[in-house]
Amino acid sequence: MDTDRLLRELSDFLRIPSISTNASHDADCRAAAEWVAGELRRLGCRDVQFLASDTHPVVWGVGPEVPGAPTLLVYGHYDVQPPDPLDEWTTPPFEPAVRGGKLFARGAADDKGQVFCLLKAIEANGARRGPPVNFRFLIEGEEEYGSRVLFELLRREPERTRADAVLIADMAYVAPRWPAVYTTLRGLCYAEITVRTAKSDLHSGEFGGAAPNAHEELARLLGRLKTPDGKIHLPGFYAAVRRPSKRELATWKRLPFKESEFLKHRVQAKALTGLKSYSVLERLWALPTFEIHGITGGFTGNGAKTVIPAEATAKVSLRLVPDQKLKVVERQLAAAVKRLAPKHVRTSVRFLHGADPATVAVTHPAFQLLDQAFKDVVGRGTVPARAGGSIPVVPALGKGGAPVMLTGIGLPDDRLHAPNEKLDLQQLWDGINVFRRFYDLLGDKGV
Amino acid sequence: MDTDRLLRELSDFLRIPSISTNASHDADCRAAAEWVAGELRRLGCRDVQFLASDTHPVVWGVGPEVPGAPTLLVYGHYDVQPPDPLDEWTTPPFEPAVRGGKLFARGAADDKGQVFCLLKAIEANGARRGPPVNFRFLIEGEEEYGSRVLFELLRREPERTRADAVLIADMAYVAPRWPAVYTTLRGLCYAEITVRTAKSDLHSGEFGGAAPNAHEELARLLGRLKTPDGKIHLPGFYAAVRRPSKRELATWKRLPFKESEFLKHRVQAKALTGLKSYSVLERLWALPTFEIHGITGGFTGNGAKTVIPAEATAKVSLRLVPDQKLKVVERQLAAAVKRLAPKHVRTSVRFLHGADPATVAVTHPAFQLLDQAFKDVVGRGTVPARAGGSIPVVPALGKGGAPVMLTGIGLPDDRLHAPNEKLDLQQLWDGINVFRRFYDLLGDKGV
Repeated sequence: MDTDRLLRELSDFLRIPSISTNASHDADCRAAAEWVAGELRRLGCRDVQFLASDTHPVVWGVGPEVPGAPTLLVYGHYDVQPPDPLDEWTTPPFEPAVRGGKLFARGAADDKGQVFCLLKAIEANGARRGPPVNFRFLIEGEEEYGSRVLFELLRREPERTRADAVLIADMAYVAPRWPAVYTTLRGLCYAEITVRTAKSDLHSGEFGGAAPNAHEELARLLGRLKTPDGKIHLPGFYAAVRRPSKRELATWKRLPFKESEFLKHRVQAKALTGLKSYSVLERLWALPTFEIHGITGGFTGNGAKTVIPAEATAKVSLRLVPDQKLKVVERQLAAAVKRLAPKHVRTSVRFLHGADPATVAVTHPAFQLLDQAFKDVVGRGTVPARAGGSIPVVPALGKGGAPVMLTGIGLPDDRLHAPNEKLDLQQLWDGINVFRRFYDLLGDKGV
Repeated sequence: MDTDRLLRELSDFLRIPSISTNASHDADCRAAAEWVAGELRRLGCRDVQFLASDTHPVVWGVGPEVPGAPTLLVYGHYDVQPPDPLDEWTTPPFEPAVRGGKLFARGAADDKGQVFCLLKAIEANGARRGPPVNFRFLIEGEEEYGSRVLFELLRREPERTRADAVLIADMAYVAPRWPAVYTTLRGLCYAEITVRTAKSDLHSGEFGGAAPNAHEELARLLGRLKTPDGKIHLPGFYAAVRRPSKRELATWKRLPFKESEFLKHRVQAKALTGLKSYSVLERLWALPTFEIHGITGGFTGNGAKTVIPAEATAKVSLRLVPDQKLKVVERQLAAAVKRLAPKHVRTSVRFLHGADPATVAVTHPAFQLLDQAFKDVVGRGTVPARAGGSIPVVPALGKGGAPVMLTGIGLPDDRLHAPNEKLDLQQLWDGINVFRRFYDLLGDKGV
């Protein structure tokens, strides 16, 4: 494998700051889409298109036709999370850097590095021709922002998902040398909760002591929405939450996961929090969450300003688990905010984006081929696991009836969405080899 | 009075964005100081100096010598509060605009417009000479940021405050047509409270449900520091708070102040808050406060980022009343934050600036002259009142033994520190006439 060339090419992709949530990066998102389209053309794709090109385009490609061969739909995303806080990055997020066998950059693992593996595994290897598979590609640019465009596209054109199998590499091993396939993803409900207490900001000298403070009311409201024990106080919120089976919980106990190591090496805090009567894996994989991401309003500049804020907004999100429904949770959150705020406070909730949770059966024969590919390349097959994250479009990709293989070549310490995101180079090279092996198995044996 | 010219000159002063708390406005602060120095020179001042000129300079001036006449120290400030939130201003904060007989601009009332009155009242009026008073001027540029420089200056050079009286116009009438002199000012303790829960920000999909969230911990901590009833939970915080005398409370009852009108026209909220067993004036003038001004940390950009913040900071301040001490309250706040945060949360408190509360006796004969001046010009003398705001340097200005006359020509609805700050033009013209009359009375009668 010409690793120098591959690293150079991946670095070109990673250098593009394709932050989908921030409109000032629209041109960068388009540049990343162009990069993907160029790769697809190099792989001999006919019919490379930008679908829904008025926004961050969905890149669509159809691989060279191989009569009689199975059809594989490959999904991935070229958009990335914002890199803040910038000052915690050792090297800048969009200047890929290799240190200690790891490639550091925003998107290295989520998901550009993994899309790269999926594509480079198809490249003709020396004299060898491409694998005997009919490829379809859907590489989108709004995964980190709710995949709204792709959702609408698949509703209008469901035939795009017609395939024998769907492959997604946007996940990680459950532990080093433990590849996984994922059986559930949590859903997501991202919202802004705004409280307003007065017509405009007031001087804390003139009015302090008698005027309501929006930040104070918001802080109290947030404290009521989730109590220190980790319980989320939306009416009916836990009604649809389904506990994993005893067998599934027993499987998790055999995984190489230690709560103390998780705390020490990954969370890097003084204590874990949440519902203490559940194991940490159950909290991460099978229970819903409520998180505050940031708070705006009042004065946040340098120095001091003695203002009583009239308005404050919290960016929050809830992760949902089977069988919760996004639409129901949105109603529950709106109702709880209304109920928990005092009468003199005006509240509003704006929903930014969301996704239902996803459940994937891993019984289709295609999963055995993926298992075999990992065994052949890295020496261990895939363990079924759950994921705490969300890939909004997963349910829609499986609607055509094809099995959705949700796997990945990241490691648990890749720091997705955080400063110093990285991908281990060994995982990158292994990933290319695993997917190449999988394509060959799929082409040879069919499903 | 040549009101067109005066309005033009004041507008020049108001156009300078001299925001002292923000280092990017250092040059603007210097420009505002130059503007003041120019005026002092025009008034015939000898010895116009920039004191402590390595920071926002304190402008010092000594007026023309009038042998045998009383000495009056005039204090004011040329710095202003930040104008955020900008989008709530009808016209831009640093483009003075007259609408409906009011002049809108940041600093119109606090304090440039009032400094302007104090200076223009000295200008020779037609054939008339300046008033028979020995003027001293101390016009500083850090009042909105704690007056640290002026404090140090007056500690080193206490002789600057040697005068027969000190005049400060940085206040408002208690109601339209009700001029006031102020007997107390609240002190201020401005701080940043930071909580840290992990080494760096974490992905809410991967870690949500088991990792602590800095914003969540900060919200709960803030909710504990002040409860919904308005009580501030610092150990010993209320021990030094002194209730006003029955006589003083009785005086307040006679002021033209209605809680319902205060709510409707000034706070413009649905309800007043705070300690309900005290009258609103007592809450504003004689009780300490705790206010949240803004919160930083996590993700506050446009769009959505699903991050669990590792650090969050609240800008807060406490207003202090006689006989609370800044140093004591700082210790109480630091102790409360430590005590109220859970063990797995690291906290720190950084004190940005502060001031002790001030008490001023209004018995000196100079107050009778000021009372007379208001009577002569606006038809009513001064009522003694208290102020909820803070002017950090007031106690230091009185240390030389001179009476500190704390008055002003603003109105209660001037929206200090808030969007659409204004000064009524009639107040401006009255103010110039009142101070001109006061200077004449002081020169003629002495104190």
